[in-house]
Amino acid sequence: MKAAILGGGVIGGGWAARFLLNGWDVAVFDPAPGAAAALSEVLDGARRALPMLYDRALPVEGRLQVAATLEAAVSGADWVQESVPERLALKHEVLGAACRVAKDAAVVASSTSGFKPSDLNAAGARAIVAHPFNPVYLLPLVELVGPDTARAAEILRELGMFPLEIGAEIDAHIADRLLEAVWREALWLVRDGIATTAQIDEAIRMGFGLRWAQMGLFETYRIAGGPAGIAHFLRQFGPALKWPWTRLMDVPELDAALVDRIATQSDAQSGHLSLRELERRRDDALVTILRGLRRRGQGAGEVVAAHEARLPAPEGGLSVRRRVPVTWTDWNGHMNEGRYGQVFSDAADAVMARCGAMPGDGDGWSFFTVETTIRYLAETHAGDPIEVATEVVEAAGKKLRLRHRMTREGSPLAECDQLLLHVELDTRRSAPMPEAMAARLRDFG
Amino acid sequence: MKAAILGGGVIGGGWAARFLLNGWDVAVFDPAPGAAAALSEVLDGARRALPMLYDRALPVEGRLQVAATLEAAVSGADWVQESVPERLALKHEVLGAACRVAKDAAVVASSTSGFKPSDLNAAGARAIVAHPFNPVYLLPLVELVGPDTARAAEILRELGMFPLEIGAEIDAHIADRLLEAVWREALWLVRDGIATTAQIDEAIRMGFGLRWAQMGLFETYRIAGGPAGIAHFLRQFGPALKWPWTRLMDVPELDAALVDRIATQSDAQSGHLSLRELERRRDDALVTILRGLRRRGQGAGEVVAAHEARLPAPEGGLSVRRRVPVTWTDWNGHMNEGRYGQVFSDAADAVMARCGAMPGDGDGWSFFTVETTIRYLAETHAGDPIEVATEVVEAAGKKLRLRHRMTREGSPLAECDQLLLHVELDTRRSAPMPEAMAARLRDFG
Repeated sequence: MKAAILGGGVIGGGWAARFLLNGWDVAVFDPAPGAAAALSEVLDGARRALPMLYDRALPVEGRLQVAATLEAAVSGADWVQESVPERLALKHEVLGAACRVAKDAAVVASSTSGFKPSDLNAAGARAIVAHPFNPVYLLPLVELVGPDTARAAEILRELGMFPLEIGAEIDAHIADRLLEAVWREALWLVRDGIATTAQIDEAIRMGFGLRWAQMGLFETYRIAGGPAGIAHFLRQFGPALKWPWTRLMDVPELDAALVDRIATQSDAQSGHLSLRELERRRDDALVTILRGLRRRGQGAGEVVAAHEARLPAPEGGLSVRRRVPVTWTDWNGHMNEGRYGQVFSDAADAVMARCGAMPGDGDGWSFFTVETTIRYLAETHAGDPIEVATEVVEAAGKKLRLRHRMTREGSPLAECDQLLLHVELDTRRSAPMPEAMAARLRDFG
Repeated sequence: MKAAILGGGVIGGGWAARFLLNGWDVAVFDPAPGAAAALSEVLDGARRALPMLYDRALPVEGRLQVAATLEAAVSGADWVQESVPERLALKHEVLGAACRVAKDAAVVASSTSGFKPSDLNAAGARAIVAHPFNPVYLLPLVELVGPDTARAAEILRELGMFPLEIGAEIDAHIADRLLEAVWREALWLVRDGIATTAQIDEAIRMGFGLRWAQMGLFETYRIAGGPAGIAHFLRQFGPALKWPWTRLMDVPELDAALVDRIATQSDAQSGHLSLRELERRRDDALVTILRGLRRRGQGAGEVVAAHEARLPAPEGGLSVRRRVPVTWTDWNGHMNEGRYGQVFSDAADAVMARCGAMPGDGDGWSFFTVETTIRYLAETHAGDPIEVATEVVEAAGKKLRLRHRMTREGSPLAECDQLLLHVELDTRRSAPMPEAMAARLRDFG
């Protein structure tokens, strides 16, 4: 599969990374000076962060081509993504040219945050809106608007994204309307000297931002409504909430003085961190939050889990193939010893899953680990590609003995001996496993 | 220290839990029928979730008293928190009565989300605004508004909260103004049939909600501005962003039809989960996100870390005293084997820290673990209070041998033997530790 990326800035580069790291070939067209350098910065960030999301390795990267013309980029592509600046005439030009070259079956999409499909297609293109969020390589949301978005949604899900198919056209779609409402209020607060940019950021990230990462607006307030329900909540709080709504509804003038005030406050708040450092902090926190939500099976974590299930499982004698997430390192700058135990626990799970020895809900039995010995042979770092090869040393009666060897590109990192017992869950006591299961386990590898 | 909680609903109950679980005595006054049952539900939720945030045990709970009168609750209190419904006459009555009984040195505060201190004190009270966010026992943010909030801020920090001292009075303070802007826009989208409540929640939690949990608004867009800076970003995007701001600025009428539409959509979205289940999911996700941010030292995670540093460290031969976070359990319903390794790693760190054997930045040496054996003796579950007693078996030359015993209320859960080597960080090779350090390690316990 091939993707054509028209415009290689932060958004276009993020799209390129999503496709590339999921095994697609990617052709980027961007005539701006410095475009190649900007693209490679975004790709570096994505190559570092995205693989850490998953407990399985991503596919082999596709081929990256920097195309000399729009036509060369679009030719033969299955997905064409336009991410040029938000000027309608420019969009018409780029999307028109793309539609003339694109395959009939290709998805042609615009990253526009503001324009409706009917605006984009007024000069004869056949584009849909596929509006992503920065960083595109980590955030799952893509707003899809257009006459037919089913095929696009399917492809986005394969890329580990979350397509939100919006049935009605509206300026700025959904998310940016909400964001702009907040911007408007925040600009008033700064302009009138009520709050600084830092105070506004704290008001968000110490409070409702933590709720919104998992539940959004309505589900959060469903809880606040209590046993009487959300309708009761709305009827009761409506009048009290409505009262400040009627104030400060004008559009603040974003004049030079306000721009300057915001810039000065923002410098005071985060100016000690370089952009690169800010991006890294953001990405590491996103990986951490997304991995946490994945463990809980909530919100964006479900998207990560669904994508991971599509990634190829390790084969042969391998039980684990993955990258070390940044969340696993400690103050020594290397993977914490406790995480080795987690890797070997995952390795044991993988062996059992492939041998039909993984209990399901209600099976009444499981395997419990009773002793583990780990020998640490070399240091492991965040981002390292690691593999675990597992040997079933014994599988008979109650006992399952596993020996794991963890390597990085062939060189040894650690070894682990694990003794597990087959357990009846109602008594929590050990009991012999069925001989057929034991035989399958002995055949592993 | 004693806190008086006036109004024991979701917010008052959350305040009661914050104080109680941090060792304060708490007196609650709420004449509503069913108040005691509602309070105990909130306390149950808090007792389950809050201790999981920390790697150290919280203090012993204070005494909880359900007071028969406002005066009995307020008498002798160091903090008085009013959380009654948002009716100004009622606030005047309750705060007035509280101020007549309260000690001069007591903080008298209102949880109001809308009223300014000058509104609250128009009838003679001397209250400040201390506006928290649900769930009060987990979210750090408290907006403080009033003539003198320094002492209140100090106490809130001791409770593990984040006081945001706002210098200027304004209706609805800061966070709720932002929230109301979003509500207004969201209500229009639902009313006009552009989006359902579920779509709006997805637009938030799959996208910008994940950014806001860590960075808020301005720091996020500082990155989007790229190398040219946030002023450039504002100047460039201002006009494009402003354009939709001028639309749909009226206040939507929250009439019966809109309430009904929202309630129906919300039922379709989350009606299969009970309120209790929703609360549990929310709290578990908050614990997960907050623990993740704490590891990264970012946002609300810094607040958790600062609070934890105030909690008493284990003493004598104990190296760990804590509760098992919900994030540590696996599909067997018990603590994953990998997490035992993490607990014993923490135990080793605690021993080294107390013996002056924990390397600082630039010390040039550290201890690396080379072999660990864990014997799992019993199952451990989320919320369990666990302790680790550590014995220094050998500390001489390059070698440090530790034996850990993990228990729950005295009954054995696991044992661990650990061999660590003293390492020179520039060569990453083992080398003898100083004899004075070895002697301190041998004296541990």
